[in-house]
Amino acid sequence: MSKELLWDELKEECGVVGLIQHEDDHTSELLYYGLYALQHRGQESAGIAVNDGEKARWHKEMGLVSEVFGESELEKLTGKIGIGHVRYSTSGESDVENAQPLVVRYRGGTIALAHNGNLVNAKLLRDRLEDSGVVFQTTIDSEVIVNLIARYSNEGIHGAIRRSMELIKGAYALVMMNEECLIGVRDPLGLRPLCIGKTEKGYVLASESSAFDVMGAEMVRDVEPGEMVTITPEGIESEFFQSSAKRAGCIFEYIYFARPDSVIDGINVYHARKNSGRILFRESPVDADMVMAVPDSSVPVALGYAEESGIPYGEGLIKNRYIGRTFIQPTQAIRELAVKLKLSPMAANIEGKRLILIDDSIVRGTTSKRIVETLKQAGAKEVHVRVSSPPVAYSCYFGIDTPDRNQLIGAVKTVEQIRKIIGADSLYYLSPEGLVKGVGRPKNQFCLACFDGDYPMDLPEKAQKQNGHRVFQRLEEEGS
Amino acid sequence: MSKELLWDELKEECGVVGLIQHEDDHTSELLYYGLYALQHRGQESAGIAVNDGEKARWHKEMGLVSEVFGESELEKLTGKIGIGHVRYSTSGESDVENAQPLVVRYRGGTIALAHNGNLVNAKLLRDRLEDSGVVFQTTIDSEVIVNLIARYSNEGIHGAIRRSMELIKGAYALVMMNEECLIGVRDPLGLRPLCIGKTEKGYVLASESSAFDVMGAEMVRDVEPGEMVTITPEGIESEFFQSSAKRAGCIFEYIYFARPDSVIDGINVYHARKNSGRILFRESPVDADMVMAVPDSSVPVALGYAEESGIPYGEGLIKNRYIGRTFIQPTQAIRELAVKLKLSPMAANIEGKRLILIDDSIVRGTTSKRIVETLKQAGAKEVHVRVSSPPVAYSCYFGIDTPDRNQLIGAVKTVEQIRKIIGADSLYYLSPEGLVKGVGRPKNQFCLACFDGDYPMDLPEKAQKQNGHRVFQRLEEEGS
Amino acid sequence: MSKELLWDELKEECGVVGLIQHEDDHTSELLYYGLYALQHRGQESAGIAVNDGEKARWHKEMGLVSEVFGESELEKLTGKIGIGHVRYSTSGESDVENAQPLVVRYRGGTIALAHNGNLVNAKLLRDRLEDSGVVFQTTIDSEVIVNLIARYSNEGIHGAIRRSMELIKGAYALVMMNEECLIGVRDPLGLRPLCIGKTEKGYVLASESSAFDVMGAEMVRDVEPGEMVTITPEGIESEFFQSSAKRAGCIFEYIYFARPDSVIDGINVYHARKNSGRILFRESPVDADMVMAVPDSSVPVALGYAEESGIPYGEGLIKNRYIGRTFIQPTQAIRELAVKLKLSPMAANIEGKRLILIDDSIVRGTTSKRIVETLKQAGAKEVHVRVSSPPVAYSCYFGIDTPDRNQLIGAVKTVEQIRKIIGADSLYYLSPEGLVKGVGRPKNQFCLACFDGDYPMDLPEKAQKQNGHRVFQRLEEEGS
Amino acid sequence: MSKELLWDELKEECGVVGLIQHEDDHTSELLYYGLYALQHRGQESAGIAVNDGEKARWHKEMGLVSEVFGESELEKLTGKIGIGHVRYSTSGESDVENAQPLVVRYRGGTIALAHNGNLVNAKLLRDRLEDSGVVFQTTIDSEVIVNLIARYSNEGIHGAIRRSMELIKGAYALVMMNEECLIGVRDPLGLRPLCIGKTEKGYVLASESSAFDVMGAEMVRDVEPGEMVTITPEGIESEFFQSSAKRAGCIFEYIYFARPDSVIDGINVYHARKNSGRILFRESPVDADMVMAVPDSSVPVALGYAEESGIPYGEGLIKNRYIGRTFIQPTQAIRELAVKLKLSPMAANIEGKRLILIDDSIVRGTTSKRIVETLKQAGAKEVHVRVSSPPVAYSCYFGIDTPDRNQLIGAVKTVEQIRKIIGADSLYYLSPEGLVKGVGRPKNQFCLACFDGDYPMDLPEKAQKQNGHRVFQRLEEEGS
Repeated sequence: MSKELLWDELKEECGVVGLIQHEDDHTSELLYYGLYALQHRGQESAGIAVNDGEKARWHKEMGLVSEVFGESELEKLTGKIGIGHVRYSTSGESDVENAQPLVVRYRGGTIALAHNGNLVNAKLLRDRLEDSGVVFQTTIDSEVIVNLIARYSNEGIHGAIRRSMELIKGAYALVMMNEECLIGVRDPLGLRPLCIGKTEKGYVLASESSAFDVMGAEMVRDVEPGEMVTITPEGIESEFFQSSAKRAGCIFEYIYFARPDSVIDGINVYHARKNSGRILFRESPVDADMVMAVPDSSVPVALGYAEESGIPYGEGLIKNRYIGRTFIQPTQAIRELAVKLKLSPMAANIEGKRLILIDDSIVRGTTSKRIVETLKQAGAKEVHVRVSSPPVAYSCYFGIDTPDRNQLIGAVKTVEQIRKIIGADSLYYLSPEGLVKGVGRPKNQFCLACFDGDYPMDLPEKAQKQNGHRVFQRLEEEGS
Repeated sequence: MSKELLWDELKEECGVVGLIQHEDDHTSELLYYGLYALQHRGQESAGIAVNDGEKARWHKEMGLVSEVFGESELEKLTGKIGIGHVRYSTSGESDVENAQPLVVRYRGGTIALAHNGNLVNAKLLRDRLEDSGVVFQTTIDSEVIVNLIARYSNEGIHGAIRRSMELIKGAYALVMMNEECLIGVRDPLGLRPLCIGKTEKGYVLASESSAFDVMGAEMVRDVEPGEMVTITPEGIESEFFQSSAKRAGCIFEYIYFARPDSVIDGINVYHARKNSGRILFRESPVDADMVMAVPDSSVPVALGYAEESGIPYGEGLIKNRYIGRTFIQPTQAIRELAVKLKLSPMAANIEGKRLILIDDSIVRGTTSKRIVETLKQAGAKEVHVRVSSPPVAYSCYFGIDTPDRNQLIGAVKTVEQIRKIIGADSLYYLSPEGLVKGVGRPKNQFCLACFDGDYPMDLPEKAQKQNGHRVFQRLEEEGS
Repeated sequence: MSKELLWDELKEECGVVGLIQHEDDHTSELLYYGLYALQHRGQESAGIAVNDGEKARWHKEMGLVSEVFGESELEKLTGKIGIGHVRYSTSGESDVENAQPLVVRYRGGTIALAHNGNLVNAKLLRDRLEDSGVVFQTTIDSEVIVNLIARYSNEGIHGAIRRSMELIKGAYALVMMNEECLIGVRDPLGLRPLCIGKTEKGYVLASESSAFDVMGAEMVRDVEPGEMVTITPEGIESEFFQSSAKRAGCIFEYIYFARPDSVIDGINVYHARKNSGRILFRESPVDADMVMAVPDSSVPVALGYAEESGIPYGEGLIKNRYIGRTFIQPTQAIRELAVKLKLSPMAANIEGKRLILIDDSIVRGTTSKRIVETLKQAGAKEVHVRVSSPPVAYSCYFGIDTPDRNQLIGAVKTVEQIRKIIGADSLYYLSPEGLVKGVGRPKNQFCLACFDGDYPMDLPEKAQKQNGHRVFQRLEEEGS
Repeated sequence: MSKELLWDELKEECGVVGLIQHEDDHTSELLYYGLYALQHRGQESAGIAVNDGEKARWHKEMGLVSEVFGESELEKLTGKIGIGHVRYSTSGESDVENAQPLVVRYRGGTIALAHNGNLVNAKLLRDRLEDSGVVFQTTIDSEVIVNLIARYSNEGIHGAIRRSMELIKGAYALVMMNEECLIGVRDPLGLRPLCIGKTEKGYVLASESSAFDVMGAEMVRDVEPGEMVTITPEGIESEFFQSSAKRAGCIFEYIYFARPDSVIDGINVYHARKNSGRILFRESPVDADMVMAVPDSSVPVALGYAEESGIPYGEGLIKNRYIGRTFIQPTQAIRELAVKLKLSPMAANIEGKRLILIDDSIVRGTTSKRIVETLKQAGAKEVHVRVSSPPVAYSCYFGIDTPDRNQLIGAVKTVEQIRKIIGADSLYYLSPEGLVKGVGRPKNQFCLACFDGDYPMDLPEKAQKQNGHRVFQRLEEEGS
């Protein structure tokens, strides 16, 4: 049984970070802490590349940030500019070739790139590049991007990036560096987050502002959708390579992915979650003895629900923190232990109680089923599940690892069917309207395609068909 | 800077687990999950020993349970009886020789032992054994215990254990096995916990009942103070090798060490913590905007305080979960990042607020100081610290790794001095009376020596002097 | 002190191997044994790539073949075609990015390449490719080659290779594969060796025939200079992409690099060495008590010298076999131990004797000096050094890692000066005429440029100057 | 198929080394080089223990010396006294518990011990110690020895050792240390070797003098049978704890185990081997074209045979040097590759020739059979096998890992039968008389029990029966 089946959750693709300073003052160490703060965005591989003005050095491997880097690795990474990357953990085969940052030599020098997101036309661009004789050594979109940049490098680095961004379609937050500067780019719809911080000696780029604290940085602002920022230790230059009235920030960052202490596009994640909890109560009140959360991301939602309802909040599940990459999954014979290895019921706090269980989302439904069972076995009288997002019914093509549509329980079952499957006494999903209200911005600012199938850009033909005809076949080869 | 100075907290010594079954049905795998559930009790080393009726096999190494064991290690550990051990992580030098279980061959066969606790007369016994020609290969108390048992083995295994327990003084929960049975022993005062569970195919022993869920076991009862239980797959035999009217359960298990879903000596840990929070408010009410906790162990306390006070509970600090053994500590130059690497302030939820910060204990005061600073930097208007235990003012000799008395801020400073040092707007420690009331048993059931110096048994001469004359020198060589 | 300074010897760049079979019958295991047999050609990194007709898989890492591959790695490498590579061990920084085989996706599918040799126009070609927008992820010549092939892939794989070979200049033995066939290519002058073997189920390519035994193969023939062979399980197709009357086989393969049980271009290496020994005696007889060799490659030479002279052969130095990658070099204080760690004198067999010491070559002279000293300390009365090759006086640009010319003792000192420096009683180098006579072919069949500077092709400008003006600066960036 | 079956050879048990200096001048580094020089005596595990006058530190692990120790491990091992140990590589399960040196604390302080050899009464002594309540944590004889020493420690360290040596029976060379001195002990019959060297700053003990060169030491003398030497930086004190007219040096040290540059009990190993070759020719001349050896230990024998016979010596087999612990053995399907992975035939030097193949011993006969086959396949016209020792027909109880008697081909087959089995054209074993004549001492100085069953001391009952009645059961539990 794969890890995904055991822990049924959506996976963020990546986290990125960059730093430029007047001088090499703990550059790689600060990048290490930054990546560490973004570890929740990817546990598969980690990498740091630095440039000392003459030579780029890098180290990347499968594993957690603290597994990949020791002091000896960091010591070798000297330079005043550097970028870093964490990648998510799949159950599939490890592939260090696909780890980032990607560092290449091209006509203009050396360029290193860290990418969060997913292109929808990567295959097309890759085909075209191959037609003109380009070879590829990885299967990641990022290799397409650096090849485009190299191809247009006679227009200068900015010209080359501008031209490349005109060609690529999809979701991307890019952190790049050459010998002289740090460059940040965000896709025209702002699907993936990227923000700028200021330290005493320079500047920082990061997927989330939660990385700033441990890098000694303070928030300056978000990189805007369609903006390219070029950062030297002296300052920030900005250029919009594409402007769009439309915005499509990934709503799941607020629901689940981002750390609650992050602020993304001006929205405080913790507040967004707590508000969602309040609205969730208003949309679907229920009489009960305790409001509890599936830890950790749903805790603020549960607190909001509790405050709004007046029903006390309590802890009902203990999360075991030590599950790592090398954790041994239970064999078939003792499979029923699976969910308890990650979440233990706090029997004494549950027994005889009518519970409101707050979860952020239901993907396949398997984990929800096991949790409800566990709570009932522990003595819960009733379990009312309240989900702080609508049913996930469409695959994501913009950087989230969703399973095939036919495995998305929200795509193939009604809410009542789902309720029965997971064994809940009642089940309610937050409405899309409630969700955006909780986040506090108009609906047209976000991508809610995973709920309503209204993708913010044209998808490749195959994907359209899949969604249109419910073919439910995995779109192959469409990204990393 | 050592890990301990960065994260100023008391360390539990160990966790123990045992399993006996009718047949070898995933014995080592179940022990692995049991240890995994007890990982919070020790992250330094892990080990499992099994006996297949003929031969004992074992594997132990420095590291987390998931680091020490892979599938290949578990596969080799076959047998229907087994025991396991986790040991706490010190900043000191790694020493795999001291990892447990300890497995020895003696006249009566093979015996394996896992020990949680600390003997106060280990040095004396070790000296006497050495005088009679015994050699020692480790520095752990457990080696003294097995040598005593071997010495008396002509009286049979039970006789030998009984005789040995008459000689040793201190705190101990022991899980042992030979070729035929699993044996559990708890010291006469019940300082360290140990409980019995029942599975479909046999029996389990564990430091905490929280290990039972993942081993497919249900709570039977605690091993009683002074009791030795001998378990075969057919049942449990009990014998009291020493009876005492007095009990002295370690109060810190309820305050901090144990998992909140554990039940120890009939007391539900979560409830004990939540009650402490309620009493803490009654003893020291304060007007404020939000009650928050230093995660994780203080969350139930904060919820109790919040409920009793009516002040809303909120999350103010995010704990980074990925700090492991190999995490690189910040160098001097960027030391101020230290506390934030583990605890990030949730600025948006703190700003402008008067906070009640609940912590379970203050040891040296360094972490508390950094947390208060961090919260103020993040915009907190006031920080009122409420501690769910009295000032820690005396060293522990019964299995907790306390620093020297002269480093215990509660031993050398007044509460008002401490308040100033940590920069809090107000500071209150729960009274001893409040503490035991929260736990819900008479004070004479517990050891509160770390607060009041009233040790439940005679200490070795050196230790007495230290406490009596405030000599504040570390008692050397008094055990591992 | 680097390994090179301690053990002063020339380093072969690489060994290559390939296998194609009717079915996947231990493909990766046989490649493993083949690489193992070629381990003497490179100890820095090892890699194997296989293609199962649909997908290429590969594994490559720093280290010896037996360190890089375990059973689990080999099991994952399934397919009926595969290639392998070993790379030499430098004292410099490890760089897994540069390990081979190199596997890329291009318009025509997937191509994997293993390369032994060195291009002299790699920088030029790389510049041109970069000008047209190509990016490079490694610093090895092989990446240039695959980019050329991809560029011409509209002419079919053979056309593309043909076109690419027209462009590249230098020394190369290439083993390549795509989904369908195994391809072997050898440079027009035959600088680097490559031969074809036949197994029961298919065909093998290898740098040396000594790999055939352990792959269950029998020698078919050498790949000819300028030939490209395309191998399917059914047979071999041959095509000459360039024909040249001239040949320039690397003479050092016979002197030192190749295993003595190999046959290269029809010449038996063992015989060549033994003959050299006979001729060496005829050119420079000396009266002595024992002929001995610097093990291992000089043993056959010494045997030839002994037979021709009638002076008995004996062992005078014991080679320690266990020096590996991780061996700790002695610190300055105990530096004098250095040579003895690798070569111990057999005092009892040396004492009081007049020795003829046979060595294959002298590079910097440091090791020779230490050996002579060691033998004298061990009691040798006289040490007459006879070298089975002329003085190495020119750098190699065709795949051998020679030091800068100013460090080649043969380039900057006379023979008499060298004799004094190394402390020998007499010193003689085999004449170029004697050398080729020993190998048994006309001089115009070989490259002897390292002795006479008569390079078999134009060198890049920088290199010419270096040799012309004795600038003695290292030719930078000219390949791996 | 186990490694032993593939490479059919006897295994030495261990190598030991010790060093004491005026000051800590690279103590652990010199021990590392000493162990490295003795690596041929054991490749299973390696360990070093040092004592800085106050505290003993040690590091030991499974693996080669260069795998077990890195710079960081050596740096931690500070002190002016130290000892080291290498243990042989079995195909069986790795067991780090049994690695040496063994370091224990006892009444008199700390003692560390490294042991080469095997006791014949270890089980008896172990039983008696267990009866008095002693526990054992390993299965090695050395733990018995340290327990005896501890038991008698009230008689002082020398008294305790003296008393212990009176009790133990068998083969042993011991290197021990406490806080003050280095102690060397050799069994009364001198079965296992041990010699003393002198450095500029102190003294060295080692199994073989070949370790002295790389430790900067010069040979002083052998430790005598029955002698205990106590070494301080100031000098050597000697004491004979038992004197015996009889000597029984292990003859296999000269035949196979020891390095040819070692001098053991005044006998030069290289000379002994070369003499054996001369005598072998005289005992069994044969007309042939070439004398060749199974490398490496038989090369001097072959040279002696060649010189005496006038038949030229040549190399016919190339030994692959890179087979290490992690080398993957061929699966059943390609088993026939097995012998060639280690020994490749030099076809060109063999073809059409009548060969005399010199081997040092035949154990099971499997490797000999494969080698003869290989040579014939490579074109040898005749293969005449000459073995430089008599048939191995009895198990060793003194430190050599011999297989069960029923697997010793010399115990169960006649010479003519063996010749047929291995496919040789003729086969001759050196006579016992010829062997001792070659070594150059009277027969009564050596143990030749593996050839004639005449053990130099009483064996445990079981072993006697086995040899008397040809029961051929493995003597269980009789040592490590």
